Amino acid sequence: MTFPVVGMVGGGQLARMTHEAGIPLGIKFKLLSNAPQESAAQVVSEVVIGDHRDLDTLRAFARGCDVITFDHEHVPTEHLRALEADGIPVRPGPDALVHAQDKGVMRAKLDAIGAPCPRHRIVADPTDVERFAAEISGGGAQRLDEGRWPGDGRDGGFPVVLKTVRGGYDGKGVWVVRSSKEAAEPFRAGVPVLAEEKVPFVRELAANVVRSPHGQAVAYPVVESVQVDGVCDTVIAPAPDLSDALSGQAQELALRIAHELGVVGHLAVELFETADGRILVNELAMRPHNSGHWTQDGAITSQFANHLRAVLDLPLGDPRPRAKWTVMANVLGGDYPDMYSAYLHCMARDPQLKIHMYGKDVKPGRKVGHVNTYGDDLADVRERAAHAAGYLRGTITE
Amino acid sequence: MTFPVVGMVGGGQLARMTHEAGIPLGIKFKLLSNAPQESAAQVVSEVVIGDHRDLDTLRAFARGCDVITFDHEHVPTEHLRALEADGIPVRPGPDALVHAQDKGVMRAKLDAIGAPCPRHRIVADPTDVERFAAEISGGGAQRLDEGRWPGDGRDGGFPVVLKTVRGGYDGKGVWVVRSSKEAAEPFRAGVPVLAEEKVPFVRELAANVVRSPHGQAVAYPVVESVQVDGVCDTVIAPAPDLSDALSGQAQELALRIAHELGVVGHLAVELFETADGRILVNELAMRPHNSGHWTQDGAITSQFANHLRAVLDLPLGDPRPRAKWTVMANVLGGDYPDMYSAYLHCMARDPQLKIHMYGKDVKPGRKVGHVNTYGDDLADVRERAAHAAGYLRGTITE
Repeated sequence: MTFPVVGMVGGGQLARMTHEAGIPLGIKFKLLSNAPQESAAQVVSEVVIGDHRDLDTLRAFARGCDVITFDHEHVPTEHLRALEADGIPVRPGPDALVHAQDKGVMRAKLDAIGAPCPRHRIVADPTDVERFAAEISGGGAQRLDEGRWPGDGRDGGFPVVLKTVRGGYDGKGVWVVRSSKEAAEPFRAGVPVLAEEKVPFVRELAANVVRSPHGQAVAYPVVESVQVDGVCDTVIAPAPDLSDALSGQAQELALRIAHELGVVGHLAVELFETADGRILVNELAMRPHNSGHWTQDGAITSQFANHLRAVLDLPLGDPRPRAKWTVMANVLGGDYPDMYSAYLHCMARDPQLKIHMYGKDVKPGRKVGHVNTYGDDLADVRERAAHAAGYLRGTITE
Repeated sequence: MTFPVVGMVGGGQLARMTHEAGIPLGIKFKLLSNAPQESAAQVVSEVVIGDHRDLDTLRAFARGCDVITFDHEHVPTEHLRALEADGIPVRPGPDALVHAQDKGVMRAKLDAIGAPCPRHRIVADPTDVERFAAEISGGGAQRLDEGRWPGDGRDGGFPVVLKTVRGGYDGKGVWVVRSSKEAAEPFRAGVPVLAEEKVPFVRELAANVVRSPHGQAVAYPVVESVQVDGVCDTVIAPAPDLSDALSGQAQELALRIAHELGVVGHLAVELFETADGRILVNELAMRPHNSGHWTQDGAITSQFANHLRAVLDLPLGDPRPRAKWTVMANVLGGDYPDMYSAYLHCMARDPQLKIHMYGKDVKPGRKVGHVNTYGDDLADVRERAAHAAGYLRGTITE
């Protein structure tokens, strides 16, 4: 048997679905999970229970793996360098991954390669936040002089978005403040704080690409990501009414970022689309991403399969869509712990529905699964996804 | 957590792919496998190693399972009855499964429900085989008088197909004999022997259906199965140039068999299509089947997902095709033990190719995986599947 062993660090649903995608490829999948009841640990045969922040644990796990990849960005950068020094291929590597781990490093690099971003800088304290707000007010920000941030016609200033440069996820570690008085909390963690203008976007997009070590890359159709309360609710593939020009610009930008940062594997570039037809980079994720879950049922090759192919340096699969429209809706926990009995109604109502559950205990607001629907009629496809997600959550009862 | 536990008996590739299909459903999958290196045991988290012929092993395995289903037909019928008596749902149940375990029982039942079969009867010894050949020669077979087997214009008689009623699979346990002198071997096993006319078929078809305990059933498109040396080589979905009438007749027949035999789960009805446009039942399999592997990439709901939904009595998924043509080609072992390095060429040549490997060691002629291709142009779709299967096997080198 000459098939390689892929070691994935992190036992969440992304690892679960990567394992699922790896089964047909015949590759051997090894998991490092914090606990045996984690999402992926429930379905993978070879599981090591341990702490991904502990280098000895990582080293022991990596022994016998042909490549290490990740379900999350939380492995300390220096540990990744140590694994690389041990001769273990780490994909994406620490020099790439740091841009998804540290928002300060990410913004600096995006600036350096000329990728359009919201106006931003690292701020020292609440007074400095006030200074930043003044800088971006009325187009007076220093960076604007470089011409890469065309004015958006706003008066700028507050509200300002503050983010700790490390540790944020899905709205955690992010604050929107309207004055320096509200700006104290982000500084309490003792982590550098990044201030960003609050972009008056019309919607959020994601440009997802996959890149392999020898530099092959594929771009998925640009999708629209609909957020509710700071959490991704629905993804529509492709983004409706997106001009070919902006779609191409977004794909080209994501491919360029993947190349410039040396990303290996799946890269999600979360974007703001502004009223005046620009795109600005919001966040980067270097792993399979919620905005790519639609690919499981809607694309020729899923993001999970392509992530594996990339980290193994295999030729990448076709990223094109299989349906005119595919919609993904996240299933959040509601008041009812039992989602299985809801299957009866959901499956009977829509025999084409694709359910993807993560094996997680239901907690209100927790992402415990998603559904995919596809078809020719966007309104119908959206309705079916929203209905199933709502019914599983318990907010729709008929 | 209220999600059910499905226990699958048998560690082969069908269990492996059923587990893969079960991950998104969030059901818990438990495997009884003969050895830890078996195909499914490599990828399932909860594996019991044990002998499926041992009742105590089965009972211990079944404890904590909400339903038991199968990767193969080799669990003794009386053990299945014992599990049922213990209160464990067994799906398909012993009264159904016996028809896939015993070809004599199968033929008797198909006769009783008027399903068209090759002319056949149980034979006692080589002399009785000669008598059977004479009976079916020139249309003189007793059964013909009942009008269910219209004459096919042949002179009948030898060659005759002999099958041990139990234990056969993929050409094993099957003999084609041209005289009573050649007919000794099948009787040596001490198992009843079934004689069948050798049907002058033009091709083999399979009508695959899935049925749930409450009687819902779905029918997949009828496929053509191309055999080479008695082993399935290629499956084309749907069967090319099959008339709507015969297609409907085959689906209706498979649904009727599923109903009359009380099948729960996937039922494959392997059929002969004759030159004069009739279909005759060749074999039955009550589990996911090689002729249904195309559904993984070619149908809205795969046979594996629908088998699980059926054994859990969930509403069944849409069986319709997603592409105009889907072709499955089996990957057999060749002279080269390393199939992984062939991925480079196969994936680069055809980015739409879907590879499904079973994690098995390569042995010449052994089924170690399959590939699926789909598209609008049948010739192209067939060529791509045949090329990939041949390249992986090592019989095509460019």
